Amino acid sequence: MIKVNKCWLSMNACYSDVDIPKLIYFNEKSLVAKQALNEFCVGIKKLLSNEYCSKIQKKGDLNKDFLLLGTIDNIIKSNSIKNIFFKKTDMNLLKKDGFIIKISGKKILIAGQNDNGLLYGVFRFLSLFEHGQIKNNFKLIDCPVSPLRMINHWDNLDGTIERGYAGRSLFFNNGYFSYDQKRIEDYARLLASVGINRISLNNVNVRQNAKLLITEKYLKEYAKLAAIFRKFAIKLLLSINFGAPFSLGGLATADPLDPAVLKWWKDRAAIIYKYIPDLAGFIVKADSEGEPGPFQYNRTHADGANMLADAVKPFGGEIIWRCFVYNCKQDWRDHSFDRACAAYNHFKPLDGKFNDNVILQIKFGPYDFQVREPVSPLFGVLKNTRHVMELQITQEYTGHQIDLCFLPSVWEDILNFDTFNGEEKSRIKNLIKPYKQGYSNIEGFAAVANTGLDNNWTGHTLAQANLYGYGRMVWNPYLSAEEIVKEWSALTFDRQEAVQKIEKILLRSYSAYEKYTSPFGVCFMVTPNTHYGPNIEGYEFSKWGTYHRSDANAIGIDRTQTGTGYTQQYSQKNAVIFADPSSCPENLILFFHRLRYDYKMKNGQTLLQNIYDTHFEGYEEVQKMADEWKSLKDIIDTGIYESVLSRFERQLENAREWRDQINTYFFRKTGIADEKGRKIYE
Amino acid sequence: MIKVNKCWLSMNACYSDVDIPKLIYFNEKSLVAKQALNEFCVGIKKLLSNEYCSKIQKKGDLNKDFLLLGTIDNIIKSNSIKNIFFKKTDMNLLKKDGFIIKISGKKILIAGQNDNGLLYGVFRFLSLFEHGQIKNNFKLIDCPVSPLRMINHWDNLDGTIERGYAGRSLFFNNGYFSYDQKRIEDYARLLASVGINRISLNNVNVRQNAKLLITEKYLKEYAKLAAIFRKFAIKLLLSINFGAPFSLGGLATADPLDPAVLKWWKDRAAIIYKYIPDLAGFIVKADSEGEPGPFQYNRTHADGANMLADAVKPFGGEIIWRCFVYNCKQDWRDHSFDRACAAYNHFKPLDGKFNDNVILQIKFGPYDFQVREPVSPLFGVLKNTRHVMELQITQEYTGHQIDLCFLPSVWEDILNFDTFNGEEKSRIKNLIKPYKQGYSNIEGFAAVANTGLDNNWTGHTLAQANLYGYGRMVWNPYLSAEEIVKEWSALTFDRQEAVQKIEKILLRSYSAYEKYTSPFGVCFMVTPNTHYGPNIEGYEFSKWGTYHRSDANAIGIDRTQTGTGYTQQYSQKNAVIFADPSSCPENLILFFHRLRYDYKMKNGQTLLQNIYDTHFEGYEEVQKMADEWKSLKDIIDTGIYESVLSRFERQLENAREWRDQINTYFFRKTGIADEKGRKIYE
Repeated sequence: MIKVNKCWLSMNACYSDVDIPKLIYFNEKSLVAKQALNEFCVGIKKLLSNEYCSKIQKKGDLNKDFLLLGTIDNIIKSNSIKNIFFKKTDMNLLKKDGFIIKISGKKILIAGQNDNGLLYGVFRFLSLFEHGQIKNNFKLIDCPVSPLRMINHWDNLDGTIERGYAGRSLFFNNGYFSYDQKRIEDYARLLASVGINRISLNNVNVRQNAKLLITEKYLKEYAKLAAIFRKFAIKLLLSINFGAPFSLGGLATADPLDPAVLKWWKDRAAIIYKYIPDLAGFIVKADSEGEPGPFQYNRTHADGANMLADAVKPFGGEIIWRCFVYNCKQDWRDHSFDRACAAYNHFKPLDGKFNDNVILQIKFGPYDFQVREPVSPLFGVLKNTRHVMELQITQEYTGHQIDLCFLPSVWEDILNFDTFNGEEKSRIKNLIKPYKQGYSNIEGFAAVANTGLDNNWTGHTLAQANLYGYGRMVWNPYLSAEEIVKEWSALTFDRQEAVQKIEKILLRSYSAYEKYTSPFGVCFMVTPNTHYGPNIEGYEFSKWGTYHRSDANAIGIDRTQTGTGYTQQYSQKNAVIFADPSSCPENLILFFHRLRYDYKMKNGQTLLQNIYDTHFEGYEEVQKMADEWKSLKDIIDTGIYESVLSRFERQLENAREWRDQINTYFFRKTGIADEKGRKIYE
Repeated sequence: MIKVNKCWLSMNACYSDVDIPKLIYFNEKSLVAKQALNEFCVGIKKLLSNEYCSKIQKKGDLNKDFLLLGTIDNIIKSNSIKNIFFKKTDMNLLKKDGFIIKISGKKILIAGQNDNGLLYGVFRFLSLFEHGQIKNNFKLIDCPVSPLRMINHWDNLDGTIERGYAGRSLFFNNGYFSYDQKRIEDYARLLASVGINRISLNNVNVRQNAKLLITEKYLKEYAKLAAIFRKFAIKLLLSINFGAPFSLGGLATADPLDPAVLKWWKDRAAIIYKYIPDLAGFIVKADSEGEPGPFQYNRTHADGANMLADAVKPFGGEIIWRCFVYNCKQDWRDHSFDRACAAYNHFKPLDGKFNDNVILQIKFGPYDFQVREPVSPLFGVLKNTRHVMELQITQEYTGHQIDLCFLPSVWEDILNFDTFNGEEKSRIKNLIKPYKQGYSNIEGFAAVANTGLDNNWTGHTLAQANLYGYGRMVWNPYLSAEEIVKEWSALTFDRQEAVQKIEKILLRSYSAYEKYTSPFGVCFMVTPNTHYGPNIEGYEFSKWGTYHRSDANAIGIDRTQTGTGYTQQYSQKNAVIFADPSSCPENLILFFHRLRYDYKMKNGQTLLQNIYDTHFEGYEEVQKMADEWKSLKDIIDTGIYESVLSRFERQLENAREWRDQINTYFFRKTGIADEKGRKIYE
């Protein structure tokens, strides 16, 4: 048995002095509610180093001190309980999957809007209790803002993980399932503790044996995993291959309008749902980077998604349809074509054409999880199509979990982006709501996982904060990165001195990474294929459509009306803001504009000097983070200290390469030295 | 059984009218001589479509018409035969492995200086006979100039071939031997027909199972292959891993000065030579690109090589020691270090320190088989060390056998390079001689094979010419590329019209490839790892030490005294020639000099304009070659026509990428347009 890190559920200390009654009332029947009770008992015992939960009753004397765990519907059947804990308004505030925690005298209530809410309430209670925030007369009602809180694993059946930086797959090996049941439970617990409610296990690129996951031999085993996650209120998704009727089923086509294809999928769905009756549905990457899709048959993506939606509809399933569709065989010579326009061009015209059990999954930006991209113009304009935003927790372009990069920092920016789409409150975070026809509501999020078989789950121990942060931010997009980092550090490290230093390190990490990598939103100066480290012209002459076209005088792509016209995909107000370099946010200025190196930035320095400055600063900031970390030597666990230190050493080397290659590249182009006389290699 | 292309041994037609006597005198006992007889009989039957060799006698009536096959020592035992065929001087002209072909009346002699020479004589006779060059009173005495005529296969035991572009390994698969005996015989025949006398089968990077080749289970099978090649006068070499005593033998070290290590190798050699008594020896890549070597133990390469030489000495074995030793973890920031200097710096000081059964194998240039490099300064200065030159037949940097690139064109340039080392005739070709202490003789060549399991052996059918050309040029370095191409085309294609067109296509191919790839000897603008297609800055910030450092004004490395000093490794005369841009050959000018783009070349145009011109021309020349090939549609075999045509289509695409990326790259750097107004993409 691997010794596994418990992450933010370690419960090493307890700062609360509220008494926990030993008498527990619990009268729930569901698997999830029973799991909630179990989590409470194990957790509170760990925190208080004492035996709890020896007296659990369905109900009892309400005059005694007791702790009540239950779902709201059951609880309010008793008026006397209701009177102890509830005000009139409380009931209205409690929304799907939410919970209420209430201390009334020496009586404690943890109640869920449903059994899922009860589980979430227990985890929250434990974390608040651990940190002394549960006090007399405490009351918290909290409900998830995002209905859909998903994670996508890109695990291959051979045990590798596409863009995985934390060891091999938790689920697969050698072409089949392979997992440690205890470890999967630990993982489900971690995810449930931050509110994740749907996950897919296999890579969205469904190749080789993964195609067989929809066959009985594999489904039988998939169902066992579903059973583990089910206890934790997490439903599974299945990544499927759109071409399966052809490549697996032996049909002559996978054309979505061919009745035989629909029938094939219906039959297949019946088999799948026999094994996993509560499967959330399929996730589909179609017509993307070589995967099959409806375009092969001259059909639209609505045709493709709706056909699958029809197949899973009888079973309550949904289709998560990825919008990462673009021409990946572009000619670098052709300046008229702009990959950034692709998702909008493909999917905006289809708004309203998708069935009610199709959910589009749209990457947050128009490219591909770059360090800094504008928010995709698809958000805010789809009024009649269910959709979620896709993020990436795994650090594909953000340092491979070798470099520290606290992602909630940029997620906060994304959530604060104002679409100016005409609705009253039009920031992304304001749009996160259950679907409603005629509104541009975003139903939630999906994100690529950063976990694997490494002992600490995430390769870099501090990258656990990204997994935690994703769950928390998706639950409540109004949380700031700073609030999240405070929660996470406090739950993960027990010494207060360490906690505060680590908060600071994490909060400066994203900015540092952004500074030493590709400048001002220009994107894709990263090593092709691996996506780690610099290769400034690595994509410059490739087929991927991601160019910066630096020459002796200027850099960047003109995406305004005088260029590719991409800015016109935004609301009028944003189109104006982005189209003018003086109003365009400077961290995105090279995404939208082609600028001369002598362009004067807001700080009065040239663009070139700003490039030099940020790159020197980025490296220095990594040095500072590393030094800060070294000051923790004797106050945190040696294993963690050493492992993070060695990552900082690698990050320093990487940051140095980025700094020097970027600076040298532009120095060679321009012949203009750094104004501050720092060393730029020739 | 695969249908295998016979290449230049197809013998499809016969243009000779000399009568071949049906009576054959043959009185030889060796395997090789018997194989020679066999080759003669099979070949002459194929050429004349008639039964031959029905009357073979040891000796007989000298007044009859007869054809005599034999070795010189046997033949001259009979004074009467001697008198028929020999003049006094003939005997002096016949050198090791040579042969004499003589027509005297209706009597024909094919005699070898030894049994190998007899085999070579038979193959030559057949090819000359095929093309009508055997006439009355014909006499040819020909002897190989290079004593060592080697080919190195870089085949891995898993069946892949490092830098192989013609299918999988002829010898290995799935970690063990795997071959078609008939096909190996065909291969041995091809090699013997052009005089190859030593080959290694396994990759010089000896990893995984290849390390086990020196153990009995593997040697048993290796011996079977040795037996096949033995009949064709080809001895095997074995690529070994210098670290074997440690990694395989369980010793604590592989230190060459440790007596236990020497003993281990001696014992190992005894086992190896038990299985293959005539093994030519070991080939060793040590301290190179991550392979183990004497540097690990603070020993010199002489220490390392001599230890192994001691181990194989009792069995007549030799050590081929590769000189591809350089720092492959260079920092691009450091301009003082120059990889080009490495081989000379490592091996010149060791001249005279190697045992007499050690042979250094030195790459022709200071880098690594680039399209255009200067000849390594090690040639001409090693006076007391046996050595050979290493070439590459496989087209690692020269188009992967997708692009046509007739390599004898550049080998001719290499052979004509004058070392000006003070000896009377000091061109490389003049130095090809048996080893003699105090002279800078080069004992021959080794080259990386371009063959694999593809039906046509070489992927691109016309790349067979490179294998043929290597053998011929190594046999006789005074042959021109044009002479070689004429031989090869005539032997391979039967229609005269096709032959002449193909000669022309081949002869323009190297220049075309050189024109559209990296300009003027600057090297390494190729895609990293694969080495196919352009990636102009692909190596610019890497650890490999191969930089061009292009900036807005200039390109190239100053390797003169004012720069890295590399020119000083050459003889004084060459140092002067190379150090001055006006005397430096222009096809190497960017290897030796850092030049401004406005540098005036000999044709009066700037360097930049020359870059543009050569790149437009290179592409056009590929178009012309492809068009020329298309004109052969109805006059050559359809299969060959189509397969070569499809390669030309891929070559056109590659040449277009090179042309456009190079031109765009320099246009972006300089902002200077093509003077002739041709399209350069922005």
